[in-house]
Amino acid sequence: MSMRAAVFREPRTIEVAERPDPQIKEPTDAIVRVLLACVCGSDLWFYRGESPYEPGVPVGHEFIGIDEEVGSDVHTLAKGDLVVAPFAYCDGTCPHCLNGITTSCVNGGVWGLRGNDGGQGEAVRSPLADGTLVRVPGSGHSDQTLRSLLTLSDVMATGHHAAVCAGVRPGSVVAVVGDGAVGLCAVIAARRLGASRVIALSRHPDRQKLAQTFGATEIIEERGDEATKAVLDSTDGVGVDAALECVGTGLAMTTAFDIARPGGTVGFVGVPHGVELPVGTMFSRNIGARGGGAPVRAHIPELLDDVLEGRIDPGLVFDFETNLNGIDEAYAAMDERRAIKSLVRMA
Amino acid sequence: MSMRAAVFREPRTIEVAERPDPQIKEPTDAIVRVLLACVCGSDLWFYRGESPYEPGVPVGHEFIGIDEEVGSDVHTLAKGDLVVAPFAYCDGTCPHCLNGITTSCVNGGVWGLRGNDGGQGEAVRSPLADGTLVRVPGSGHSDQTLRSLLTLSDVMATGHHAAVCAGVRPGSVVAVVGDGAVGLCAVIAARRLGASRVIALSRHPDRQKLAQTFGATEIIEERGDEATKAVLDSTDGVGVDAALECVGTGLAMTTAFDIARPGGTVGFVGVPHGVELPVGTMFSRNIGARGGGAPVRAHIPELLDDVLEGRIDPGLVFDFETNLNGIDEAYAAMDERRAIKSLVRMA
Repeated sequence: MSMRAAVFREPRTIEVAERPDPQIKEPTDAIVRVLLACVCGSDLWFYRGESPYEPGVPVGHEFIGIDEEVGSDVHTLAKGDLVVAPFAYCDGTCPHCLNGITTSCVNGGVWGLRGNDGGQGEAVRSPLADGTLVRVPGSGHSDQTLRSLLTLSDVMATGHHAAVCAGVRPGSVVAVVGDGAVGLCAVIAARRLGASRVIALSRHPDRQKLAQTFGATEIIEERGDEATKAVLDSTDGVGVDAALECVGTGLAMTTAFDIARPGGTVGFVGVPHGVELPVGTMFSRNIGARGGGAPVRAHIPELLDDVLEGRIDPGLVFDFETNLNGIDEAYAAMDERRAIKSLVRMA
Repeated sequence: MSMRAAVFREPRTIEVAERPDPQIKEPTDAIVRVLLACVCGSDLWFYRGESPYEPGVPVGHEFIGIDEEVGSDVHTLAKGDLVVAPFAYCDGTCPHCLNGITTSCVNGGVWGLRGNDGGQGEAVRSPLADGTLVRVPGSGHSDQTLRSLLTLSDVMATGHHAAVCAGVRPGSVVAVVGDGAVGLCAVIAARRLGASRVIALSRHPDRQKLAQTFGATEIIEERGDEATKAVLDSTDGVGVDAALECVGTGLAMTTAFDIARPGGTVGFVGVPHGVELPVGTMFSRNIGARGGGAPVRAHIPELLDDVLEGRIDPGLVFDFETNLNGIDEAYAAMDERRAIKSLVRMA
């Protein structure tokens, strides 16, 4: 038996291949039949040939689906459960998982690599299913809800991580650097944590509009030094309590530190490429920095309720939709910035 | 009328000069007759010629004394009050002061520079006295208490800042990198905030002993990679919740990040010299960094009670004592590491 799944072929070519149907290998495994998957901004690094990826290896790390089979040592999940998969799997029991940093799980790993199935495919074997997959309560969820649940795999939980790392709390003045799906979700997260002002840095009208839908109170269109000046002007020269860096470039990081007030914090979740942290500025102005790959698994439970009860609707970041046959176009649309984020409907 | 005060002459020469008796210039000023002053590890940078300092300019930024005169617009202090001076002055009313980052005060500055008196002298004009000087309640304090009050000017409050920046809380596992006066005070601070374990990195028997007196639960003598290995061995491979970097060198910072657990924090208060923050490590392991020049003025009030009630005794860091005539020797003793910290008795 085989299934169809997206694999990397070469830069700018993602293709659909036949792969063996996933089977339970360990009693802690579960097999997930994928409902919805999507393309991540970080997938564009290998798509563009800017980071290495082996030809023929499956791709995708964000998906929701239905448990088709669970191993004999899986206790929190059952066949038929709707589950959200975080972008990395983890055991849930090691010291780092217990400390909330599931991305540092001593037994963890990521989808696609090292023989694992990728999320952009019909089915996935999940190792460590109890520690990894989050069961979604209820049934008959709307497509809108399912789309929002899918964002908990990565972008919504990552935006939330940026806000948590930056210490956003009720009354905080926040700026979000980056208007990709993560930055837009960071706007939701900042408001959800009680920020009184959320300044979104965005030059694209469609993204500005979505940022406002998500609760941004101000839009700043400038970049670089001009953006810094605009944020400082808007805050009486003080700067923001929390700057959420959701890009990963040196320019974005520089802007984030320049707009943070003394004693403020930069929360950074863009994978750093060519970034240096300005230790002198951090020291002289007491600006903290915290970030990293989001321990999504630890964040999902508290976000899940808000999605199910309709308090947040991060699924609006999907503005392009296709199925597995259109996977290459799903990448191209994001690469060419025609799409904020591409949804891939598997079933 | 004139007074005597220490001034910088040239590298390795601090001398006593006659300077005009300080006078009230602004109604917000106070004149402080200095009781005790001391030499800071950061003073050694100009002493050694490693950072610039103008010949003839007064030195010293840590002192306690008695208010000799207060301006007409000073409301919280009166003649005769015993006061602690933080190492930087501030207005206490600007947005940064109100936010607790008094070192970023829009009207602030440091002792010695720009026409200000230095702390290593008989008397000091304090600008912005209400915002700057902290009145010590009670009277008849013992010399031991006065010595501990003096550390609130800088080293104890700075060690506390490292612990606060690193998020030390009840039950934290903490390591302190650096066994200078600040590092030793950071041991006190970590225990005071409830750390269950404090690992002190120190190679010097006298400093190890003081670290233990201050509450260190373990001493690690190794440096660099060996120190990292020892800390990880001691924490079941997990690392520490909080690494307090109290040196300012690249090696100390590297060690601090290497021993921090995923999700942990490096609190850094050593003035960075040749330091680069390891953004890749910070991202992959979700390790935060926060630090800077300590907003001592904001920290003094809560530490003051603990000193007055004898719960902490940071004055033990002073293991060399002289008077103003011995100021050059006070520097030399620290420069040659014969002293942890030099006290200069003015009256």
